[in-house]
Amino acid sequence: VSLDRENSWTLAELSDFVGAQLRGDGKLKIQGIATLQDANASQLAFLSNPLYRPQLKTTRAAAVIMSAEFEKDFSGSALLHENPYYAYARLTSIFASPNTKTCENKVAIASTAVISGRAKIASACTIGAHTVIEDDALIEEGVSIGAGCFIGAGTHIGAGSYINANVSIYHDIVVGKRCVIHSGVVIGADGFGFAPHAKGWEKIHHLCSVKIGDDVELGANTCVDRGALTDTVIGEGVKVDNLVQIAHNVKIGEHTVIAGSSAIAGSTEIGKRCMIGGGVGIVGHISIADGVTVTARTLVTKSIKNPGSYSSGAPLMPSADWRKSAVRFSHLDEMHRRLKKLENKAEKK
Amino acid sequence: VSLDRENSWTLAELSDFVGAQLRGDGKLKIQGIATLQDANASQLAFLSNPLYRPQLKTTRAAAVIMSAEFEKDFSGSALLHENPYYAYARLTSIFASPNTKTCENKVAIASTAVISGRAKIASACTIGAHTVIEDDALIEEGVSIGAGCFIGAGTHIGAGSYINANVSIYHDIVVGKRCVIHSGVVIGADGFGFAPHAKGWEKIHHLCSVKIGDDVELGANTCVDRGALTDTVIGEGVKVDNLVQIAHNVKIGEHTVIAGSSAIAGSTEIGKRCMIGGGVGIVGHISIADGVTVTARTLVTKSIKNPGSYSSGAPLMPSADWRKSAVRFSHLDEMHRRLKKLENKAEKK
Amino acid sequence: VSLDRENSWTLAELSDFVGAQLRGDGKLKIQGIATLQDANASQLAFLSNPLYRPQLKTTRAAAVIMSAEFEKDFSGSALLHENPYYAYARLTSIFASPNTKTCENKVAIASTAVISGRAKIASACTIGAHTVIEDDALIEEGVSIGAGCFIGAGTHIGAGSYINANVSIYHDIVVGKRCVIHSGVVIGADGFGFAPHAKGWEKIHHLCSVKIGDDVELGANTCVDRGALTDTVIGEGVKVDNLVQIAHNVKIGEHTVIAGSSAIAGSTEIGKRCMIGGGVGIVGHISIADGVTVTARTLVTKSIKNPGSYSSGAPLMPSADWRKSAVRFSHLDEMHRRLKKLENKAEKK
Repeated sequence: VSLDRENSWTLAELSDFVGAQLRGDGKLKIQGIATLQDANASQLAFLSNPLYRPQLKTTRAAAVIMSAEFEKDFSGSALLHENPYYAYARLTSIFASPNTKTCENKVAIASTAVISGRAKIASACTIGAHTVIEDDALIEEGVSIGAGCFIGAGTHIGAGSYINANVSIYHDIVVGKRCVIHSGVVIGADGFGFAPHAKGWEKIHHLCSVKIGDDVELGANTCVDRGALTDTVIGEGVKVDNLVQIAHNVKIGEHTVIAGSSAIAGSTEIGKRCMIGGGVGIVGHISIADGVTVTARTLVTKSIKNPGSYSSGAPLMPSADWRKSAVRFSHLDEMHRRLKKLENKAEKK
Repeated sequence: VSLDRENSWTLAELSDFVGAQLRGDGKLKIQGIATLQDANASQLAFLSNPLYRPQLKTTRAAAVIMSAEFEKDFSGSALLHENPYYAYARLTSIFASPNTKTCENKVAIASTAVISGRAKIASACTIGAHTVIEDDALIEEGVSIGAGCFIGAGTHIGAGSYINANVSIYHDIVVGKRCVIHSGVVIGADGFGFAPHAKGWEKIHHLCSVKIGDDVELGANTCVDRGALTDTVIGEGVKVDNLVQIAHNVKIGEHTVIAGSSAIAGSTEIGKRCMIGGGVGIVGHISIADGVTVTARTLVTKSIKNPGSYSSGAPLMPSADWRKSAVRFSHLDEMHRRLKKLENKAEKK
Repeated sequence: VSLDRENSWTLAELSDFVGAQLRGDGKLKIQGIATLQDANASQLAFLSNPLYRPQLKTTRAAAVIMSAEFEKDFSGSALLHENPYYAYARLTSIFASPNTKTCENKVAIASTAVISGRAKIASACTIGAHTVIEDDALIEEGVSIGAGCFIGAGTHIGAGSYINANVSIYHDIVVGKRCVIHSGVVIGADGFGFAPHAKGWEKIHHLCSVKIGDDVELGANTCVDRGALTDTVIGEGVKVDNLVQIAHNVKIGEHTVIAGSSAIAGSTEIGKRCMIGGGVGIVGHISIADGVTVTARTLVTKSIKNPGSYSSGAPLMPSADWRKSAVRFSHLDEMHRRLKKLENKAEKK
């Protein structure tokens, strides 16, 4: 995507870019994307959630990305696509601020970066100011590393990955191609493993690595610990939100997504294409099948063998009512015994 | 507040500073603040929680900040104030360590900072060592930025704000005046938005910004994501604790406070003067009225339309008892059916 | 531990190092540690969990660390030790990658570090590139500080501590000897304290410190706030995982361990040798006895006076079933009243 276009494209160009069927005026100049409600006459909007279908009648958008099934509801220019939300997502890459692409004043390799003579930096990389890259690190073609990052010895960053400012990646880690790593992420710290003995706890040095597949995104301040005697593995296409804890030896299958503030304890394996909600906890040493959904704030305490949706927790209530239910929860077993006793009595008659 | 006083003030000066009514010896030298129990004869103490009223008889404090209603319990010097806790809070600013004010060896703009020629830095700013400020950033008067920070292109920091070491602020963000941002905070990372398609997930580039009002404080390692098609907005006077996740498009009303390790999912709106306890989760796309209190570790799963206190969860129990209640929880619907059956039987007689 | 041995030791040397009883060929060359299942003929394995005892028959390991009680199950070379897991933990220190020891290209004090002339750096310290050390900081003998760290004025780091890249330690903090601090940790930010007044919230400046004992480990992106009028204290030998929030004035007793994503609110005291599971929340102003275990994701809402295991929460269920139980939870008090009524009726007969 060329950025010297000043964000002005014709509707026909956008249609080609996203593989849509163009209806209406292909020469329309488009300067941005917005919601159906907010879009102005130079912006593109999209209809994905059918709830917003009535807004097709009132939108001022220059054109709308939509599914062919709603075509009759709208008289203006349109990009018809079988997956309008996906088409919208792809088009956002065109309209992203050029500022997302600056990396320390656009100098390719900042003079203040400290790069070991034994590190290898491929062509077309951008290395931000004050970033430190240690011995034998390998930075493949087209990688962008923001300011103030630390890349440990022997670590390998795959082609086209984009690492934002102030990321810390320990030694001997592998990050795949086209990954996006947000600020504050820490990859490769020691896992939380200590052996008890008479005087306290003996540290277990973690001898293995973290292997991150291609097209992975890790949100701000997320942590991925290195493995003890086996690697921590994050599969291709996995997306992880902010402030997520991924412990030592965890394996996460391809294309699984994990929302913010979740935590996965050591040695647990999560399948492919799972959807883990926000604030979910998953205990250690269990496994979760492919295609499992876990709703927000659930604690997964045992292995899940079948796809489907799983939950735990108690519902939101006014605090005064909640206190009463909470007291009864702590007497549930007694309540059950009393119920059983009544049933026995009733049966005898 | 002058810092060359070596932290020695007279009681009369402190009384003036905080707008209290002085009782006793205004010439007393005060060198610090402490609790009623710990204060020595050169320190000021305060009485806010009536539970500590008996300590008025035993404290060795030079003087006590207190409400006039307790005046008769104490024979020493006093600062009478209708809100003693507020008066205490204001006075802490006087006794804060001068070390809080050092920023990279007191050099105004560190020689090792990398600042774009296109950024604007107003007068009386302190910029720490190795901080990076990108093109077109605007740093207003009297801003302090600690060491190792990243300020993205086009970002605007309001007058008098204090940004601690190792903070990452992406491009095109607005931070208000007199804000305090603690170390490790990340503002403006992409929200967690991906469109599903046959081969995985397509990234949604987040085209909007984060707008933070005046007098906001963000705790260490807290994250605030940028909006997709609308800004993420944090209102004036909002206070956020450590390790809090604030997702894309969230709006938080003025003077709301959010305790540590909470998480707010995308597009949710929180009212003014709410009090959100620690570890709270709030799902996406809902709204919470002004003046709502949410107790610690609650999961808010639906909109809250009325002020008041809300909770969820189950109570703390010894693990052995808890296991029994937890089993019964999973059979609650069956228990209810059995109860209903007994009621029907009883009614027929 | 010498690192120029290229990770090759004899079994006899390892036996001496860990104080085991050697059985078999002491001259065997050992080049690493692995699990019973994965070990090759030049690696050492260990048996700690009796579940893995059958693997003694099939392992290809050069030798096995094990308890004498299983000696007869295994015909090869062995290191007999009463605590095989502890012996394994100690041996990991020998086989850790030499890369864990590099710190900015092995320069002792990086030329790009900015160190106040008033700071004191003892002998044998390593200071990483772009690290900033402020006035009057004291770095004791043999400390390693990674790249991009901030060490505030007056802060004291004990001998032999290892601080990874991009750590932020505010002013006037004390870190003990032989501590390990992982990347992204923030120590000494202001606690979350504000006094309400008519126009909003007045900041309480936190005048005290954080005191961290010897042999403490803090995981990546964990936060420990400074105290208001008393110090935040972390006892000797405490181990804290990633993304944990430790609020102002908290005291944690010796050798307590706290798993990832937990949060401890202000002024709470936790005893010695407690085990706090992952994602646990502990409210403020309570105390927890020595030797308490808290299971994963529990919310501790009141003081715990006796050792033992404590839990809260509701069990994992398929979402469809869970919805029914959750509805009944909100009517538990009503269910209890209906049960009581039936009991009264039954008694009258």
